Amino acid sequence: MLGSTESGERYELTSPTAMPKAGGFLWNQKMMIQATCRGYTTAQFMQPEPAKYAHAPNVEAKTFMQPEQNYYAHHPGRFVYVKDEENGRLFSAPYEPVRAPLDRFIFSVGKSDLKWTVENLGIQVEMTLGLPTKDVVELWTVKVTNVSGSLRKLSVTPYFPIGYMSWMNQSAEYRSDLGGVVASSITPYQKATDYFKNKYLKDKTYFLCESPPNSWETMQQAFEGEGGLHAPSALLEPDLLGGDAHYETPAAVVQYRLTLEPDESREYRFLFGPAFDDVEIRGIRDKYLSSEGFAQSAREYTSYIEQGRGCLQIETPDKDLDNFVNHWLPRQGYYHGDVNRLTTDPQTRNYLQDNMGMSFIKPEVARNAFITALAQQEASGAMPDGILLAEGAELKYINQIPHTDHCVWLPVTLEVYLAETADYDLLKEEVRSANGDTYTVFQRFSRAMDWLLSERDERGLSYIAQGDWCDPMNMVGRKGKGVSGWLTIASGYALNLWAAVCEQQGKLEVAARYRDGARDLNEAANIHFWNGDWYARGITDDGVVFGTRNDHEGRIWLNPQSWSILSGAASAEQRAKMLPEVESQLSTPYGITMFGPPFSGMREDIGRVTQKYPGSAENASVYNHAAIFYIYSLYTIGEGDRAYKLLRQMLPGPSEEDYLQRGQLPVYIPNYYRGAWHQYPRTAGRSSQLFNTGTVSWAYRCFIECLCGLRGDAEGLLIQPQLPSSWSGIKATRLFRGAKFVIDIHRGDVEEVKVMCAGQPLSEPRITNIEPGVLYNVTVSIPY
Amino acid sequence: MLGSTESGERYELTSPTAMPKAGGFLWNQKMMIQATCRGYTTAQFMQPEPAKYAHAPNVEAKTFMQPEQNYYAHHPGRFVYVKDEENGRLFSAPYEPVRAPLDRFIFSVGKSDLKWTVENLGIQVEMTLGLPTKDVVELWTVKVTNVSGSLRKLSVTPYFPIGYMSWMNQSAEYRSDLGGVVASSITPYQKATDYFKNKYLKDKTYFLCESPPNSWETMQQAFEGEGGLHAPSALLEPDLLGGDAHYETPAAVVQYRLTLEPDESREYRFLFGPAFDDVEIRGIRDKYLSSEGFAQSAREYTSYIEQGRGCLQIETPDKDLDNFVNHWLPRQGYYHGDVNRLTTDPQTRNYLQDNMGMSFIKPEVARNAFITALAQQEASGAMPDGILLAEGAELKYINQIPHTDHCVWLPVTLEVYLAETADYDLLKEEVRSANGDTYTVFQRFSRAMDWLLSERDERGLSYIAQGDWCDPMNMVGRKGKGVSGWLTIASGYALNLWAAVCEQQGKLEVAARYRDGARDLNEAANIHFWNGDWYARGITDDGVVFGTRNDHEGRIWLNPQSWSILSGAASAEQRAKMLPEVESQLSTPYGITMFGPPFSGMREDIGRVTQKYPGSAENASVYNHAAIFYIYSLYTIGEGDRAYKLLRQMLPGPSEEDYLQRGQLPVYIPNYYRGAWHQYPRTAGRSSQLFNTGTVSWAYRCFIECLCGLRGDAEGLLIQPQLPSSWSGIKATRLFRGAKFVIDIHRGDVEEVKVMCAGQPLSEPRITNIEPGVLYNVTVSIPY
Repeated sequence: MLGSTESGERYELTSPTAMPKAGGFLWNQKMMIQATCRGYTTAQFMQPEPAKYAHAPNVEAKTFMQPEQNYYAHHPGRFVYVKDEENGRLFSAPYEPVRAPLDRFIFSVGKSDLKWTVENLGIQVEMTLGLPTKDVVELWTVKVTNVSGSLRKLSVTPYFPIGYMSWMNQSAEYRSDLGGVVASSITPYQKATDYFKNKYLKDKTYFLCESPPNSWETMQQAFEGEGGLHAPSALLEPDLLGGDAHYETPAAVVQYRLTLEPDESREYRFLFGPAFDDVEIRGIRDKYLSSEGFAQSAREYTSYIEQGRGCLQIETPDKDLDNFVNHWLPRQGYYHGDVNRLTTDPQTRNYLQDNMGMSFIKPEVARNAFITALAQQEASGAMPDGILLAEGAELKYINQIPHTDHCVWLPVTLEVYLAETADYDLLKEEVRSANGDTYTVFQRFSRAMDWLLSERDERGLSYIAQGDWCDPMNMVGRKGKGVSGWLTIASGYALNLWAAVCEQQGKLEVAARYRDGARDLNEAANIHFWNGDWYARGITDDGVVFGTRNDHEGRIWLNPQSWSILSGAASAEQRAKMLPEVESQLSTPYGITMFGPPFSGMREDIGRVTQKYPGSAENASVYNHAAIFYIYSLYTIGEGDRAYKLLRQMLPGPSEEDYLQRGQLPVYIPNYYRGAWHQYPRTAGRSSQLFNTGTVSWAYRCFIECLCGLRGDAEGLLIQPQLPSSWSGIKATRLFRGAKFVIDIHRGDVEEVKVMCAGQPLSEPRITNIEPGVLYNVTVSIPY
Repeated sequence: MLGSTESGERYELTSPTAMPKAGGFLWNQKMMIQATCRGYTTAQFMQPEPAKYAHAPNVEAKTFMQPEQNYYAHHPGRFVYVKDEENGRLFSAPYEPVRAPLDRFIFSVGKSDLKWTVENLGIQVEMTLGLPTKDVVELWTVKVTNVSGSLRKLSVTPYFPIGYMSWMNQSAEYRSDLGGVVASSITPYQKATDYFKNKYLKDKTYFLCESPPNSWETMQQAFEGEGGLHAPSALLEPDLLGGDAHYETPAAVVQYRLTLEPDESREYRFLFGPAFDDVEIRGIRDKYLSSEGFAQSAREYTSYIEQGRGCLQIETPDKDLDNFVNHWLPRQGYYHGDVNRLTTDPQTRNYLQDNMGMSFIKPEVARNAFITALAQQEASGAMPDGILLAEGAELKYINQIPHTDHCVWLPVTLEVYLAETADYDLLKEEVRSANGDTYTVFQRFSRAMDWLLSERDERGLSYIAQGDWCDPMNMVGRKGKGVSGWLTIASGYALNLWAAVCEQQGKLEVAARYRDGARDLNEAANIHFWNGDWYARGITDDGVVFGTRNDHEGRIWLNPQSWSILSGAASAEQRAKMLPEVESQLSTPYGITMFGPPFSGMREDIGRVTQKYPGSAENASVYNHAAIFYIYSLYTIGEGDRAYKLLRQMLPGPSEEDYLQRGQLPVYIPNYYRGAWHQYPRTAGRSSQLFNTGTVSWAYRCFIECLCGLRGDAEGLLIQPQLPSSWSGIKATRLFRGAKFVIDIHRGDVEEVKVMCAGQPLSEPRITNIEPGVLYNVTVSIPY
């Protein structure tokens, strides 16, 4: 039913019904498209705010990307009807809207394209979607092959619904001068000032055909008729009627009539995308719409994706894991870091963590991100709730709600950048902010740490306001008193990390201040949050401690435990009590949940998280971003087996049952899998199908720095693998500071890690004096 | 294909495909539901802002009610599948989603209910929808009759999709304790403050069954399966599977298995609506879910609708017209006046005009509306852009954009109220405003007129700001200089009307001031807007006169011409030039357009109207609200034939071609029919299907005061009929100031109107000293 190609660069699904929402995604610097195996799609592009060129059949709300997206017959998608013109039989590729049982089905997700191969009625249809690197346009190839052994007369009818574009103005017509369907609309507005914001939006949607079709239709309703999308009335006619849409829902439908000899093929190319005007459409056509144009674009796109290949290749006993780490995980990290989830105002914590992943992929991008973020630091030292990336961008929605954790992420993500690059010069950069003040990066970090120290109550606990890392915990501190257990501990971790940088920079006095601060925070956490077996999550405005054994719901939260390990708040003794509690209360077959048990109803002193659907989104879901912190913290204390088990659970599989339950291909980590395993076993484990998640950078870090144990420091590369105990060894290739390390890690009769480099045993597991361009062959022995 | 019942209180359509968007609407004081003949529905209720309990399959935007609403397979609707369990054949009532060709179809729109009768496979299904007067709940009756002559085994499966309720929390289950499906959701929010706004929203949707079903399903996807809504997979199973929806799209599906002897019937009753909690659901069930409950509710609802029966019954040579005037037009007016389009902040001009209609239906409502509106008058004398009707309501969307015409509507609508009631005491009422100032109604009217006089430029022309009556003309005066031709003239009309009231009140000095003001306005209009053959529409911020013969698009606008007749700006000589231009440039077979020719693209000095789709909404559409002003103005100058032709065009029909083209039943006047008849003949005439329109009050006024010529003044009832010249006579019953007038109007050998009352000839066509409770028999002779 599902498997990867030999190279691991493609995943294939051979049923359209087993995992109906399973899909893949492609992006470039201006757009993103997610397609399901059945042909439904969600595409967005930036102008500069996210916009669509294929719409729902009604007026859609503008929201963040929805998890567990719903699909329905008229949902946007890309479909091809194939009809046997001799007997009238019909199917559609890839599967929707006809839903005919198929003789063969392959949905193949590649790193640079998506492909479908569908066979029915003796006809094979291959559909391929590619994107160029910069323009907003879908490149579609549709190849039709007669595999029936006899002469066939067919009609082939691509159907690309365009949907309800605008209540103000919309239309569509076939433009023989441009060679395709062009739908026009005007973004609705009422206030005159909004006109100027909309004036240059790409309000046209084009569908261009390399070969002129025999007939066409541009009105959705005329095409569907009384037959319905599963059996469109227009396909009963000899030709499509060639109608124009006048303030009617547009669709791009073109029809080719063809006769195919046995084994004969016909290949069609199409472009689909948004444009401002005819000139732009013509330009896109000239640039792309030919076999050479498609081939050239595919080469460029592959090379664009190749730039995100990351710094690690592994060969382990787990082939699926290898594929994921070698191909898909860095690709997903690259997506996050290169286009910032296609938003203009990413949340500050997301922006910093997404760019943390870029430290392993394109460190210069991570470097710029620090500068960009710090240039928006407030005069108080606070970091804003979101980082504005485009001119005219505004803090929207969630970023208008005060959260208090953003400063924490500066040293946390800097640690990775410095370990990977040793670029301590960054600290000396002067950054002028929007307030007009100018400080060095070093000073700005210190100011952020000072802000964290200042935003505490009389007990030394960190205020939570309307949220910390957990957005929907929006009522704990809305009156200005509530404090966060996690943030208190996380601030301790951040201060310790920053103190270490200060120490490395020889600023011992500064360092000592932050070490003291961290110690105070940890002590306060132990006084006020440690409940004897784990740390509580916070204290509400009204002084109620929550996330403790007295709570029937939300009794234990993962984050305070994970970060208490990182911050050093938890002693070995405390950890020994805590870890079994975490795992007994929060484990599920699909990963560890963010907290448990789920809330079944509103707690007004906690907030929105308690109203979310139990097991979905944040309400006790397997929220991978929380899970990964725990995993990372386990690695930092040598709990490699515990950590690996959970890390592996971030991927669907390896059993078929697990894939089916999660309903997702293992080509990305979703932001969550459903939790509430005890309450709702039918839906537990289901993937959100949402590939935007801060998890990715950390997961990659765990593989690189922890599982493989290949982590940089100021002078070189430390080697401290923590392989799962069932593995006898792995091979790894690590790119690091311009050099390449080919590493064989295997168990051997050693007491501690022993490293041979270029045939020479090293006195400690650490390679220094690394020279760019050099290939290092390294052998690592680790204890059984 | 379409016709009315004998009583005229129902309209019937006998094909589901001929006019697919044709429908009817029901409302009560808290909700509104519009249903199409095919079963799709749009329902809203007030809590206190408009909300839904059956949703689209995706996250819908909250918008004003959309004209020319789109429908698609998963659109909300109310459906019943009927399956022959012996041979597996399937159809659905009323038509969607199966779309099986039916043996018989009747969609019957009543004043108090909607009914469908559908026959297929020898089975008749009758569906009836009613509403109670106050609660938000749909009362459904489904009656299944075996008309095949032989024993039949069937399953009957109502399918009420509930849709995508919330991305935060949604579920559904069958509740045997409540006897139906209950879907729960939580209105999503992010800011903590919004929680308190949402806390008591009715977030549950219930579907209750009087008889317990044999099986049920609550998950849309499980019901549909791979079959699609036209052939749901679940209907292939012996029973529905009884699944719960967990953060999955809910639907209410229940199945009854039954065996019917020949001619045997089974009747089912269901309730569908929103609720806050189980207690409310149980209360609704106890109150309504029985044959007596339904019957009692139907009686109450009929009596509620009866209160909106209006003050005129006519018998003319045009039966369709009679039905419309006697039943549907006052019903539509009652809807507007009784629930104010189900908004909490109606635009001031809409609020006043909708209540103008209530002067004929329930004058005390109109009276209160004047007080409510005036209590929100600004300190400057200006009227606000919207009138707030609920606690916590805010001026939204369009009402945040400054318009300058609102004061005009005070005397215009007062004229009708006083003519109908002679309640001059209203003028003495003291009204304290939100600003804290207190003035009498008379004073407030004068202050509003003073404001109109003050908001003029150095030429004496009225500023337009970002719009006057024409909302989307939002860029003519955005810089503060542009002026409106229509508003200048309309202000003149308003001042004259107010001066007449002042005169009636004996305040001659005040009256003279406003007469002078009106004269100045009319003179200024004639100097700056008269282009030799008609009046221009305005002058832009940059001094460009528009709506003149130099314009290729938007050359002539209807409103300035209509109102120049009313204001007296246009002399008889000017009118003689103007009327032929209006009719030659703006006439279509579906009515007269708001302006012409349509704009084909943006004029930045005029605004949004120029970007709307040509012929749709306001861009040169047959915008009935503009057309009715013209019609009324024609009546005021005795142009009864010209006026009647256009008035009749507001209704679809009488030819079948006309019905098909408009696609609407003649049970309401829509806000527009498509224009652009020369450019797009295929779509011209198409109804917007939107029954919210200021047209209604004016149309009713035209029938009462103009066509029948039965208009009040301070002392009595004037009688000045203007029958179409092809009519020899009509009969009319007029309720007026508590008395009843039974009137026979016929052509006779007279020079002028002659009236006999109780057998006595009157010296002038005017009945005075009217006594409440008295029946007046009146005979009116009018010239040939």
